[in-house]
Amino acid sequence: MFTGQVVITFLPSGATVSVDPGAPLLEAAASAGIGVNSVCGGRGTCGKCRARVVEGAVSGVTEAEKEHLAAEELERGIVLLCRRRTAGNAVVEIMGEETAPGEKKQAGFIKEQAVFDGRAAASDPPVVKAFLELAPPTVADNTADLARVLGALPKGLRAGAGLARRAPVLLREADYRVTAAIYRPPADKSPRTDVRPGELLALEKGDTTAECYGIAVDMGTTSVAGYLADLARGRVVAAVSSANLQRVHGADVISRVTYVLENAGGLERMRDLAVQTVDGVAARLLARAGVAPERVYLMTLIGNTVMSHLLLGVSPAGLAAAPFTPAFTGSLEGTAAELGLQSLPGSARFIMLPNIAGYVGSDTVGVILAVEMHRRPGNWLAVDVGTNGEIVLTADRGSSTPAHMLSCSTAAGPAFEGARISRGMRAEPGAIYEVGVDDDIRCLVVGGGQPAGICGSGLVDALAALVELGLVNQAGRITDPADFPPDVPKRVRERIRPAGKGFKFVLAEAAGDRPEVAVTQKDISELQLAKGAIRAGIEVLLRKAGLYAADLDGILLAGAFGSNLRPQSVKTIGLLPDIDLSRVKPVGNAAGAGAVLALLSGEQLLAADGIPGRVEHVELSADAGFQDLFIEALGFEVGKR
Amino acid sequence: MFTGQVVITFLPSGATVSVDPGAPLLEAAASAGIGVNSVCGGRGTCGKCRARVVEGAVSGVTEAEKEHLAAEELERGIVLLCRRRTAGNAVVEIMGEETAPGEKKQAGFIKEQAVFDGRAAASDPPVVKAFLELAPPTVADNTADLARVLGALPKGLRAGAGLARRAPVLLREADYRVTAAIYRPPADKSPRTDVRPGELLALEKGDTTAECYGIAVDMGTTSVAGYLADLARGRVVAAVSSANLQRVHGADVISRVTYVLENAGGLERMRDLAVQTVDGVAARLLARAGVAPERVYLMTLIGNTVMSHLLLGVSPAGLAAAPFTPAFTGSLEGTAAELGLQSLPGSARFIMLPNIAGYVGSDTVGVILAVEMHRRPGNWLAVDVGTNGEIVLTADRGSSTPAHMLSCSTAAGPAFEGARISRGMRAEPGAIYEVGVDDDIRCLVVGGGQPAGICGSGLVDALAALVELGLVNQAGRITDPADFPPDVPKRVRERIRPAGKGFKFVLAEAAGDRPEVAVTQKDISELQLAKGAIRAGIEVLLRKAGLYAADLDGILLAGAFGSNLRPQSVKTIGLLPDIDLSRVKPVGNAAGAGAVLALLSGEQLLAADGIPGRVEHVELSADAGFQDLFIEALGFEVGKR
Repeated sequence: MFTGQVVITFLPSGATVSVDPGAPLLEAAASAGIGVNSVCGGRGTCGKCRARVVEGAVSGVTEAEKEHLAAEELERGIVLLCRRRTAGNAVVEIMGEETAPGEKKQAGFIKEQAVFDGRAAASDPPVVKAFLELAPPTVADNTADLARVLGALPKGLRAGAGLARRAPVLLREADYRVTAAIYRPPADKSPRTDVRPGELLALEKGDTTAECYGIAVDMGTTSVAGYLADLARGRVVAAVSSANLQRVHGADVISRVTYVLENAGGLERMRDLAVQTVDGVAARLLARAGVAPERVYLMTLIGNTVMSHLLLGVSPAGLAAAPFTPAFTGSLEGTAAELGLQSLPGSARFIMLPNIAGYVGSDTVGVILAVEMHRRPGNWLAVDVGTNGEIVLTADRGSSTPAHMLSCSTAAGPAFEGARISRGMRAEPGAIYEVGVDDDIRCLVVGGGQPAGICGSGLVDALAALVELGLVNQAGRITDPADFPPDVPKRVRERIRPAGKGFKFVLAEAAGDRPEVAVTQKDISELQLAKGAIRAGIEVLLRKAGLYAADLDGILLAGAFGSNLRPQSVKTIGLLPDIDLSRVKPVGNAAGAGAVLALLSGEQLLAADGIPGRVEHVELSADAGFQDLFIEALGFEVGKR
Repeated sequence: MFTGQVVITFLPSGATVSVDPGAPLLEAAASAGIGVNSVCGGRGTCGKCRARVVEGAVSGVTEAEKEHLAAEELERGIVLLCRRRTAGNAVVEIMGEETAPGEKKQAGFIKEQAVFDGRAAASDPPVVKAFLELAPPTVADNTADLARVLGALPKGLRAGAGLARRAPVLLREADYRVTAAIYRPPADKSPRTDVRPGELLALEKGDTTAECYGIAVDMGTTSVAGYLADLARGRVVAAVSSANLQRVHGADVISRVTYVLENAGGLERMRDLAVQTVDGVAARLLARAGVAPERVYLMTLIGNTVMSHLLLGVSPAGLAAAPFTPAFTGSLEGTAAELGLQSLPGSARFIMLPNIAGYVGSDTVGVILAVEMHRRPGNWLAVDVGTNGEIVLTADRGSSTPAHMLSCSTAAGPAFEGARISRGMRAEPGAIYEVGVDDDIRCLVVGGGQPAGICGSGLVDALAALVELGLVNQAGRITDPADFPPDVPKRVRERIRPAGKGFKFVLAEAAGDRPEVAVTQKDISELQLAKGAIRAGIEVLLRKAGLYAADLDGILLAGAFGSNLRPQSVKTIGLLPDIDLSRVKPVGNAAGAGAVLALLSGEQLLAADGIPGRVEHVELSADAGFQDLFIEALGFEVGKR
């Protein structure tokens, strides 16, 4: 049938999509489920969304492309997806920086650190199953079908009309041997009145008590992690991560918010992409573990506040400017159908854990839960390093009072994600992710081989090397090699080369089609802004709590990125206060671990609900001392090696 | 556009509908929102669904029509709607027995007896409003929009994603002056754990506290009554009643169940008709009172168990045969969207009150609530007379224990509705509804004028007159006028005329196009079955409770029909036990009153939930003594006048 649409096929995946003629190629790629590395959000400024038109026609070359692509590249049909529109059927090859499904590429690199300890084993999941062998109705006992089921279960459960519809047929087909799945939130023993009622979620034929699953999703701005948990046995049976499909409209939360505010239908589009992402994660989890969708009854969701808003289709407008007011912070519940998920039965429940503030989301609640900040004795700092650095400080006020928690969020900018960095890229194949020094610089590359660029952890290492060797000054300027300390290895010295008015630090020479990878003076400035913001946030919280860095029992580095940083480098560049390295502990994806804990344990779910009320959030933009601390934190204490 | 459909216009309303060629006319009428008197459920056996084809063509004459219509009628284009199918565009005039909208015709007749007493005035409605003047967010207090609202309300309220979506825009547009509508179910002080959580239902700009409405619906098999209540002031502001559009598929619950079981898609069709009916009632209530749909937050629903099932799209298959097992009995809650209502905002809540058993529904719970059977001292009988007679007995066991309640349901058959009665009709214009005796028979006719038929209350009166005058024997046979007692007035005597092998009792002579209206021997047999069934049910309950009729403090006649019966006549024909007439009290539409009470008062709503658990239901089909009591109850104690 003629629909007036054009068909675009994307290589290498072969995914095809029908779109209107004139549709932006970047959106066509997103519709095809392909996550494209578009750091600037499709504004034509980052030059990352490269692709090659293999067959067919697209709209003509733009000024932005002339800036980002060499003439020879333009001739070969290389385009920026965000600058071109469809003009007919076409085959388009996504170039090096495709990010989805992405998991395979990343699997060898990102370490999924397990933080599931004994707590999870002693699970009290909010969904449990009970196998019932009921007596069939008789004239003497013609109790209603649904009442017959409820009568065999703990008192007080509610059931919806959907189960009333299914119960009669199901009971008879199953010969009155059925399994009930029950949502059984923990009884709140505190004086809070916020009671979740118990509910009968599903009725199944025969004994299915062994098959009771839940999914925890950590909705990151960049990537989304999912965990399939066997609720009956209290353990995670599968984990996957996918690119957040929203990335086509910007790398960071600010550009996502901007997209929503500047585009008609932008909120709906963002919501669709978020839901598609979660659906993809859930479907892959189920496929991997061989679990049927009907056996999943609960999903716990965490994310930063903007992601929470977008996934529910709630406008993030209030987060775009001071006073940075979220639309909601409390936990929200509903059904998979309400959320719009296709991968799970419509009746499956979701619980979105509560946010703390506009830029401290439920992912931070997950971190607090996972590392037990809310009941950890001593003074602890948890830092989730990313585009936004979320920082939580627990200040011990003696055993008689519960721990006092402070939080803040700092706009570190996207440098740690590789954005606005000359050769920056995400931790994907070809990225330098670790830089060591002996008689020369040693780079480790994701997937091995010749480097194509550098990711955040590599940048931090490279900068730390410069600081340690005394090759940058206190203000961060790369020193003229003529003024170098005498003990700088010759090969390292040779890597400092003039660039513009200053110098650059070459990590890898150009080779074949791979470009030179160097850290420029501008790159260092970007990193200074990022680390300075986080360090200043830490300092503000310490002051609010009346603590010195020396009072800290430890610093926990959370998040896939933070956990992959070398504590030594982080400390060297001054992102963290000067405490003994043994007290700096990477804790992996603690946010995701928190979502899993809430899935496995009703007690943890309840604890999560209570966390935001116990956290004093500090709005740095309103803090009198922040600006001075930030400026102070931009610099380095050089030559300490 | 050519759709292949045909357009049928129905007179006198002028309603039009597009349907497929070949569609049954009866269904076309239902689709046009016209309730047609179809006692047999469209089976061609009752001959009630007459109409005249004014223009256009329909399918040909059938055998069933030759049986029910005179040749002259067939020539004039009179048809039975259930026997004909569309064959092209047509104009069809519905004949005398159109029943919907119906309300106007009935308004003068059916007395809406008020049972709303002091209890309602002291209302504690489950939905309340609060006007909030909130402080706008500042950097020092950037609490989330929804949290800002919830923080100003009683603790523990939940709110859904829908409100999170609306809150930001609404708060800003309203300058932070908003009204919250709160679902605030009563705190259960008993040890039951069945807690309904509080919920924020709506946020509105400015102060709308004066506009807070709910709707109570009594979903009868024949007609549906609706009440619009001002929850802020605790009073009913509008009441309407409409024909149940399901009537096109049968007059009684059994034929509705049969239709569902015998027709593919029958359940969905029945559900649609039920929802359309409720929508119609709600829309008319709102129009009458000038209330906007957005100001309605709660609907309480009652009905018999079959109606409850059909309205929710739950199969009533279990109710079709012994052991008569309903799919559900407990109360069910949800949203207007889930129910499929178009007339109210999708977020409005509904609560369907609990049923007691397969044939004792939430309407009986409503009766119990309204007449306070559950806390009435003494021994009381409540009888809802209809196609099914629902009977509740409260047996006083002393002040120290709560009243013991027994219930049963008897299949009285449709005689009281005018079905299977030679000139039977519903209480609509032209129906004889009251029959008195002095020197002759005096008939009162709905709407005045020449009678067209007789409705249930008229039949009961006519039969009572025969019994009182000694013109029927103990077995119910009309006596040969030759054997009449001497004191029978001459004019009455002349009304007993031969008919077939026996006699008939002529109430009105034929006049113009109006036929003779008489009570035949067969009519009396039908009435005997109906009254015998109810009386036998009463006797079984009395025996179970160890009571004599003399122990009763009173008998309450509930329902629009029961309330319009003259207690004297009811007693004369032996439908009720022999107790002093002063103790027989019509209580009006107590079921509907109960639904209103549950709407106006959270305490009553909670009480309703507890009622089924306190009622011992007696299944008459399983009762050893019922059959003998039934046969005994068929007869009359004649000549007692």
